[in-house]
Order: sequence, then structure tokens, then C-alpha cells
Amino acid sequence: MRKLYAIGIGAGDPEHLTVQAIDRLNRVDVFFVLDKGAEKADLVRLRQEILDRFVTRPKYRVVLAQDPPRDRTPVDYRAAVADWHAARAAIYERMLLSELGTNDSGAFLVWGDPSLYDSTIALIEAVLARGNVEFEYEVVPGISSISALVARHRTTMNQIGRAVQLTTGRRLAEGWPDGVDDVFVLLDAHTTFDRYVDEGLHVYWGAYVGTPDEILLSGPLTSALAARIRETRAAARERHGWIMDTYLLRRPAK
Amino acid sequence: MRKLYAIGIGAGDPEHLTVQAIDRLNRVDVFFVLDKGAEKADLVRLRQEILDRFVTRPKYRVVLAQDPPRDRTPVDYRAAVADWHAARAAIYERMLLSELGTNDSGAFLVWGDPSLYDSTIALIEAVLARGNVEFEYEVVPGISSISALVARHRTTMNQIGRAVQLTTGRRLAEGWPDGVDDVFVLLDAHTTFDRYVDEGLHVYWGAYVGTPDEILLSGPLTSALAARIRETRAAARERHGWIMDTYLLRRPAK
Ligand SMILES: C[S@@+](CC[C@H](N)C(=O)[O-])C[C@H]1O[C@@H](n2cnc3c(N)ncnc32)[C@H](O)[C@@H]1O
Ligand SMILES: C[S@@+](CC[C@H](N)C(=O)[O-])C[C@H]1O[C@@H](n2cnc3c(N)ncnc32)[C@H](O)[C@@H]1O
Repeated sequence: MRKLYAIGIGAGDPEHLTVQAIDRLNRVDVFFVLDKGAEKADLVRLRQEILDRFVTRPKYRVVLAQDPPRDRTPVDYRAAVADWHAARAAIYERMLLSELGTNDSGAFLVWGDPSLYDSTIALIEAVLARGNVEFEYEVVPGISSISALVARHRTTMNQIGRAVQLTTGRRLAEGWPDGVDDVFVLLDAHTTFDRYVDEGLHVYWGAYVGTPDEILLSGPLTSALAARIRETRAAARERHGWIMDTYLLRRPAK
Repeated sequence: MRKLYAIGIGAGDPEHLTVQAIDRLNRVDVFFVLDKGAEKADLVRLRQEILDRFVTRPKYRVVLAQDPPRDRTPVDYRAAVADWHAARAAIYERMLLSELGTNDSGAFLVWGDPSLYDSTIALIEAVLARGNVEFEYEVVPGISSISALVARHRTTMNQIGRAVQLTTGRRLAEGWPDGVDDVFVLLDAHTTFDRYVDEGLHVYWGAYVGTPDEILLSGPLTSALAARIRETRAAARERHGWIMDTYLLRRPAK
């Protein structure tokens, strides 16, 4: 039987790999790597570095997978996403059939933790649901960007006994979530924290967390600090050609 | 200068240790282990197993730390918690001064991820704030119980583009959180999911996740499944003398 692994590799620091992840890496015949274009070349390089460092097994192959093109300005957002996922499942089905022998193992190296704002598990389930290729699969958890973020800031996700929200920039733009004092924001291209300056919040921000390019900023979310994060972010993005950042907004409990 | 580490060791599976955690374990002179009484002997044993397996450095010591007694039925809950934390900081300050030479390194092995419903970071900050012992410290992130839970169930924390809440049993008892479809519940001694049966939710439940005693149950949260989880939980707790369980309640997005 074919076997697939979705392996969390942490969000930038190769030392965040777990013993389990390294064990599974060494059972894999074919690694499927998503080629996300030039701007993400750094990320593909980090994945290669992980293989070079941790895989002791002599023979394995790396296959670059190409995602289908995506409609970036759809009329119907939900339908466009569904279409894109279906096209993607078909591509991966073909790839699994052509690249994996019936007793081979394949793996997806997933950034951070596969459970957090990542489509690999849904993709694998979609391929299975099509019913044309059979395989077993296992998910290997990883250190997420938000777990790395708070470790570097030496703070916690929650305040004592309180709730925490994980959300996206898009949703935060709709307003502060009800009933929580700690909000993690991922996938925010628009520095949405700007809307919450001078409201008594504390921000813990990080870009490229866990990598040698890591930048951390934190403090009371004043308009001065917001401006500083905005400028730091824009400059870093300019310099690297891409950016990955995430932050925690905290309303200190009385 | 003294150095302290708060090292996340994962929530039960020694293979969830990261390369970074193993590296730090091997720099430590003294491990401080909280003795939580007989029912938690299994957990102390797991910590010892981790040291035996991963520490190659010949000389280290393990010091059992004793938490101060806790008022379990306080009139003023917040004040009691604050008092207890202050007493605890004083105990740990004394312990650090007496057990760590000025150039030694100490570590706390923290269950799961130190950032999630754990007081070690606050404790370290409280000791620092007292100003009687100087040290540097580092937080090493770990795989949390909820990350392990969803990996074992091969599902994600979030649905596409949606928010996630992390909360406690106590808070869930106050009502379903506003504006989220996915709720992780920790520290729930009262099977609070019972209040949400037959409302179209899906539950992913796990006890002793990552350990050889792991139990997983999932499905539409009917009163039948709720009863099954309740009974499984009660029987396991009886058998082991203690239980650690957590779950995700999901309202499927339309
Ligand atoms: C598609 S999501 C994937 C999240 C990933 N699965 C995880 O566990 O962190 C990508 C988002 O994660 C965050 N992110 C990932 N890696 C990061 C890093 N090293 N530093 C800061 N943010 C990061 C950013 O918010 C980015 O927009
Ligand atoms: C004090 S909190 C600590 C959480 C820990 N820091 C983490 O990252 O998972 C303890 C709660 O975590 C959850 N938990 C910890 N380990 C678990 C495991 N192996 N299986 C299921 N739940 C677990 C339970 O809800 C338990 O009540």
C-alpha cells in the first residue's frame, strides 16, 4: 500500500523539527515540494536544507509540484476556492499515481504545523475522496509560527484561565473578536493591527520567526509602535522580496 | 550568569521533542521537576524517560520541586491564585539560589507547549521581578496537546479562512463563544461538551494523546457519542487514577 506523510517542519528554524518528523523523513521515497515561484525560493531552499541535514537514507527523490493557476480576483470567492481545490486534487492524484510505486512512501513537508491555516490535509482528503488512488496517511505535528512567536517573546498564548483566538488579517478587519483578550493574527498582508492603536492593547510581532532574518517587536500598541512595525515590515519585505509575519494582540486582563 | 530554560517536551509522546529541546536538555546541570503527588507519578516517569533517552551529557541532577499548598475552595478566586503564585515564586527563588551555582544552567521540563495554559513562564518572570536572583532565560516551544490531538485525528484546527478559539472547560460552560466555529477545550473536568449535544457539532476527543494509553473518539456530537465519551473517560480515569483529555468542537461551515 502507498503511504503518505504530511510532516510539520516548523516555521523556519530547522531545529524545530521533532524526533518523529526526522524518523518519518527517513522513511520517505519521494518528497513533493510545492514550487511557489521565485519569491518563495528561500523557502524551497530551507526545505532542501532540512533534507540535507536530517535525512540519512541514501536514496530519495524530490518532485516539484506545480499548483494550478488561481483566480486572484474572483466574483464568487468561495466558488473560486472550491474550483481551485478540485483542480489541485486532480493534479496531485496524477502525481501520486505517476511518481509513487504501489509500495512507496511520499511526503509533503508542511510549513509550521499542518493543522494551522494550511491546505495539505484537505488536499490529501480530497485526493482520497476521488477514489482513484489508495493510500494510508499520517499527520506529523510541527511547531507553528505562533508557538515560535510567543516562545521568542517569552510570553504565553493565554492569560490565566482566559480564552485565545487564532484568526486571519481579513477577519480581524471585521472587528475585535467577542469575548477574548488574546488574538493571534496570521495571513495579514494589510497590517490590520493599525485599526487597534491606542486602545490599551499590547502587541507581540514577529517576521521570519525562527530564521536568521527574524525580527521581533513588542510593546504597548501605540500609533508610534504601529508605525515602526509598518515601516520595519515594508523595508524587510522590500529587502527579501517576500515576508511572513504574525502577531499577538493582547488586552491585559484587569 | 545563571541560565534557565523552559523546555516544551510535548504532551506525552517523547518523539515530539524537537532538535532544539534535545540540544538544550544537554546543556542543563539541574532539572527542576514539579512533584504533583502520587496520581501524577506516570508523568514524572515520562519526564525521567525523556532524560534517559535524550540526555547524553554524563552529569546532571534532578531536583524535585514542591509546590506550595493551594486553597481549593477560596472565597476570592483571583486573590487566592495571586497569593499562591507569590508563595510559589518565593519557593523557586530559594531553590534556584541553593541548587544553581552562578554559572550553572537549570531547566523546567514543561508539558506540551510552555505557552499554553501553563504557569512556568509567569513563575520565572515572578522570580525575576523579586530581584533577588539574576539569570537569563530561554523558552523552547513544544508540540501542544491540541496540535497532537488534531494530528492524530488527521484534521485541522481551523476551517478555511475561519477563526479558532482555545478555551477552558470553565469558560465553555458560560456558553458557546461568539464568532467562531472551532473551539478547543482544555482543562475540562466536567465533560462540558455535554451541553452542546444534538446541535450539529462535530467532536474530536482525545485522552492521553501521544502516549501508549491514547484514546481517540470522534464524530457528530449526538447524545449517544457524548455518553460514550463520558463513559470512556470515567473508566479510563478510574483505571489510571488520573486523566488528561482535550477536544475540538467544530461547527461545520456552510
Ligand atoms: C499559510 S499560513 C501557514 C501557517 C503554518 N502552518 C504555521 O503553523 O505557522 C502562513 C502564515 O503563517 C505565518 N507564518 C508562517 N511562518 C512564519 C514565520 N516564520 N514568521 C512569522 N510568521 C509566519 C504568517 O502569518 C503567514 O502569513
Ligand atoms: C495545564 S494544561 C497544559 C497544556 C500543555 N501546556 C499543552 O501544551 O498541551 C493541561 C491540559 O492540557 C490538556 N492535555 C495535556 N496533555 C494532554 C494529552 N496528552 N492528551 C489530552 N489532553 C492533554 C488537558 O486538557 C489538560 O487538562
